[in-house]
Amino acid sequence: MPELRKDPIHGRWVIISTERSRRPSDFVPEERRPIGGFCPLCEGNEDRTPPEVLAFRDNGISPNSPGWTLRVVPNKFPALRIEGGLNREGEGIYDKMNGIGAHEVVIETPRHEETLTTLPLKNVVNVLLAYRERIIDLRRDQRLRYVLVFKNHGVAAGASLEHSHSQIIALPIVPKRVSEEIEGAKTYFNYKDRCVFCDIIRQELQQKRRIITENKSFLSIAPFASRFPFETWILPKTHYPSFEHMDSSQHEQAAQILSDTLRRMNRVLADPPYNYIIHTSSSPEVDAEHYHWHFEIMPKLTKVAGFEWGTGFYINPTLPEEAAEYMREAK
Amino acid sequence: MPELRKDPIHGRWVIISTERSRRPSDFVPEERRPIGGFCPLCEGNEDRTPPEVLAFRDNGISPNSPGWTLRVVPNKFPALRIEGGLNREGEGIYDKMNGIGAHEVVIETPRHEETLTTLPLKNVVNVLLAYRERIIDLRRDQRLRYVLVFKNHGVAAGASLEHSHSQIIALPIVPKRVSEEIEGAKTYFNYKDRCVFCDIIRQELQQKRRIITENKSFLSIAPFASRFPFETWILPKTHYPSFEHMDSSQHEQAAQILSDTLRRMNRVLADPPYNYIIHTSSSPEVDAEHYHWHFEIMPKLTKVAGFEWGTGFYINPTLPEEAAEYMREAK
Repeated sequence: MPELRKDPIHGRWVIISTERSRRPSDFVPEERRPIGGFCPLCEGNEDRTPPEVLAFRDNGISPNSPGWTLRVVPNKFPALRIEGGLNREGEGIYDKMNGIGAHEVVIETPRHEETLTTLPLKNVVNVLLAYRERIIDLRRDQRLRYVLVFKNHGVAAGASLEHSHSQIIALPIVPKRVSEEIEGAKTYFNYKDRCVFCDIIRQELQQKRRIITENKSFLSIAPFASRFPFETWILPKTHYPSFEHMDSSQHEQAAQILSDTLRRMNRVLADPPYNYIIHTSSSPEVDAEHYHWHFEIMPKLTKVAGFEWGTGFYINPTLPEEAAEYMREAK
Repeated sequence: MPELRKDPIHGRWVIISTERSRRPSDFVPEERRPIGGFCPLCEGNEDRTPPEVLAFRDNGISPNSPGWTLRVVPNKFPALRIEGGLNREGEGIYDKMNGIGAHEVVIETPRHEETLTTLPLKNVVNVLLAYRERIIDLRRDQRLRYVLVFKNHGVAAGASLEHSHSQIIALPIVPKRVSEEIEGAKTYFNYKDRCVFCDIIRQELQQKRRIITENKSFLSIAPFASRFPFETWILPKTHYPSFEHMDSSQHEQAAQILSDTLRRMNRVLADPPYNYIIHTSSSPEVDAEHYHWHFEIMPKLTKVAGFEWGTGFYINPTLPEEAAEYMREAK
């Protein structure tokens, strides 16, 4: 059973994942570890993943067999396990609990060579609909407090499989960085009586210098205080505190701008490794006025080193306005 | 002039370092970028660095010429600049200021092939003394609020030069993660009337399971809630809020355990890339009771991916107690 441990100074939780236990000799520099060979996520290999929890396939085709366009399956090497109780306990001055939670893989396409930038729009819409269905389902479990949706694309961004997929992790606590972001937005709202993200959208639309692209419902920008070169946020122009509460009429626009933004990134940066994360409220009822869900996309172009670890302070060698210009002009 | 920009939600500052401006084509995957060739940090190449601000050399030898054992020079490509005023200003809802600060390089040895694990003890002591002198000097500048000392060793840990060196960055603000750590320690002190780090030392000495090594004055441990495999903290057994206020009798013990811990890491993990950071108080008078300086060493064995970026929540595949055992047994 994985274990959650709390740092007594920062209050930061860590998952000690004994299921994935690694000895010193297992730490082969990851650049040298081959990706490729047999792919358990490809169509036809359904028996090589745990049974699906959700799939989009034509009626009449049985689960866990070919003929699907998208599958969601539990991670074969989960960081957290769904079975059991939380069992909070102390060990002297330290605090820990059982590693209860869910860890799922969204297989975005049956075909190995396709990605979010090459898939037809309706398949990208399906990826977003799958996120929504899984978030809603996992939030029904009273033990779970936060559902994180993210994507690691490319070895340098932490992907261990090449086949296009995203991950969903449901956690028994609200992570510190999530609650800090929500608290920050709340502080701004208390001061100004306006959502900080709505204010960002207004200012960016007026200044125009950091806009990458936009459509009817969404805006893609290089944020003013980008931590990383070509960091990109995609914000819904309408205020929704959480991803899963977004009106269903918005999904096509969301899929369009996500795919368009990633295509621009591929063109400017030659298919870079990247991470994206859906930032969404853990309690949309409470955060209704002050929080605003969005995507954060971070191409992995520079190394995070001692300075960043020591301070949470980032050095970004690319002006966000220049990054936006490159991305805006990419056709 | 570099610019400091503040994220309006998190209150996190970012250095936009236009001095190091990089275009899309500059982002060659760093694994493929060669390290080596001409080394500006080697003895004899003193004219290839900015003039030294501190050096340990025999009397009678002129500055910026061979015959030294350690030099401190300004970074040739500084993230921050020492000249000018802070100039805090707004841009609509955003806040920024000039990138005032210092960025220095501690060249730990004149010889390219030596490192902190092979240098004689007295040279490692000199590295710590150089840190102290530079911290004390930089803290005299009223514009600067925090001095960070850190080391990037190896390309994967962000080093751009192979020659053994550390870096010092003096900042016009106290970074968020530093003040959070100090606040966390203060909260614990207010509740228990004891320093959390002193409590950690007591519990670790009693449980013994996470101890890597110790000497008269220091303890080296795998922290209970390690974020990374083989993360290691070195704590002074005597309570000092800041590194530079440590009694000078302790430097030899500090150098000994730092060097010993890094040697064990090299043996267990085959010379891994790593970062270390000195965690120290920005106002030792204010933090005297509740903060306790220490080293944090993080070998770079796994990738930080979407999950960690999204949550500040880490998945560690190695049990700290097992990591400590490997390190303890390394001879």
